[in-house]
Amino acid sequence: MHLSSVCLAKPVLYSYFRSSCSWRVRIAFALKGIEYNLVPVNLIKDGGQQRSEQYSKLNPMQQVPAVEIDGITLCQSLAVIQYIDETRPGPCLLPVDPKARAKVRMISDLIASGIQPIQNLSVLQKVGEEKVPWGQHFINRGFQALEPILKETSGKYCVGDEISMADICLVPQVYNAERFKVDIGQYPTIRKINETLLELEAFKVSHPSHQPDTPANLQA
Amino acid sequence: MHLSSVCLAKPVLYSYFRSSCSWRVRIAFALKGIEYNLVPVNLIKDGGQQRSEQYSKLNPMQQVPAVEIDGITLCQSLAVIQYIDETRPGPCLLPVDPKARAKVRMISDLIASGIQPIQNLSVLQKVGEEKVPWGQHFINRGFQALEPILKETSGKYCVGDEISMADICLVPQVYNAERFKVDIGQYPTIRKINETLLELEAFKVSHPSHQPDTPANLQA
Repeated sequence: MHLSSVCLAKPVLYSYFRSSCSWRVRIAFALKGIEYNLVPVNLIKDGGQQRSEQYSKLNPMQQVPAVEIDGITLCQSLAVIQYIDETRPGPCLLPVDPKARAKVRMISDLIASGIQPIQNLSVLQKVGEEKVPWGQHFINRGFQALEPILKETSGKYCVGDEISMADICLVPQVYNAERFKVDIGQYPTIRKINETLLELEAFKVSHPSHQPDTPANLQA
Repeated sequence: MHLSSVCLAKPVLYSYFRSSCSWRVRIAFALKGIEYNLVPVNLIKDGGQQRSEQYSKLNPMQQVPAVEIDGITLCQSLAVIQYIDETRPGPCLLPVDPKARAKVRMISDLIASGIQPIQNLSVLQKVGEEKVPWGQHFINRGFQALEPILKETSGKYCVGDEISMADICLVPQVYNAERFKVDIGQYPTIRKINETLLELEAFKVSHPSHQPDTPANLQA
């Protein structure tokens, strides 16, 4: 479903350079060729700017991203990505075939519900000292499930040879895994797809090391 | 998108009576009027039947639900629900308007990514003794965000006056909240929509207290 739409204002993306969910939306905008204004939200500074009264009105979950687009405010990265896909021209982020769409959503949700939420900042702050082994445990559990699924569904990318929302979820999750020092070599299919995707312009320009709010010492 | 489809075999749902993600799929089947065969997977017995070699092939995440449908196996409840919606006739589980669809997905994902995964069985087993306050904390955090969102989006149901995937996610999450003794009275919009939905036949027949694997002492 691709409805063309006249947009008077550029979308506004509230983003943190290192947030994997923000990165997902940055990739989607880049793949679609959509220009946007980025407002950085520093998740660490001032006890977390996402907790401010002003930002909490945009995203009551006090998480990034939030997106102002077409007169509405959306949170939850996959809802944003599918909204963009359904209202903007450009490459489809979900395939047309219902079974392939289902596989894309299954892989996306395995990451977006099954891995990322359990190793995100607010959970790790609650876990405390054990946060590194905790993150490793849940990322490894997720990747152990994802690897055999991708072996069946993948071609060049996660589902066949077309880029999809599943790929948009995969790369930022591998980035998180590397931060937790998970051995990606255990997951050859994940590793190979990730390497292929990182060569693409949309994944490069949206990378955490190239954002307006990336600290100087982390810029690539 | 509603493609009619000839289905030779009934779908098979691997389900646990008390699993909120299994319940989501049971509601969707009931709303659509789809008959299915249910295979119980006991998450507690034998150290968890979801960990068996046989079941792990169906769902490598070792979680319920899994669904065999139209010759493929799908996991992740929202992927299953959207596949059903896109391939079966009956009431639409997502609205046609893109903005309304986005709101339905935002609410669904707030629950399915932002709350449920952090209070599910595998995480609680890792948390250990502190599991009740842990669950309460993350359910309350999610409901504190959901309440103001629903105040804006809801009519009779989560988004306007039509039942959607958001409602399918809400009711099982409220059920979980009650198991954790969260005070639902703090969230009047959530409580009201939940009560309205529980009156509907699709939510009754799919309820954890009415499943083939519901223990006798928990049957309503």
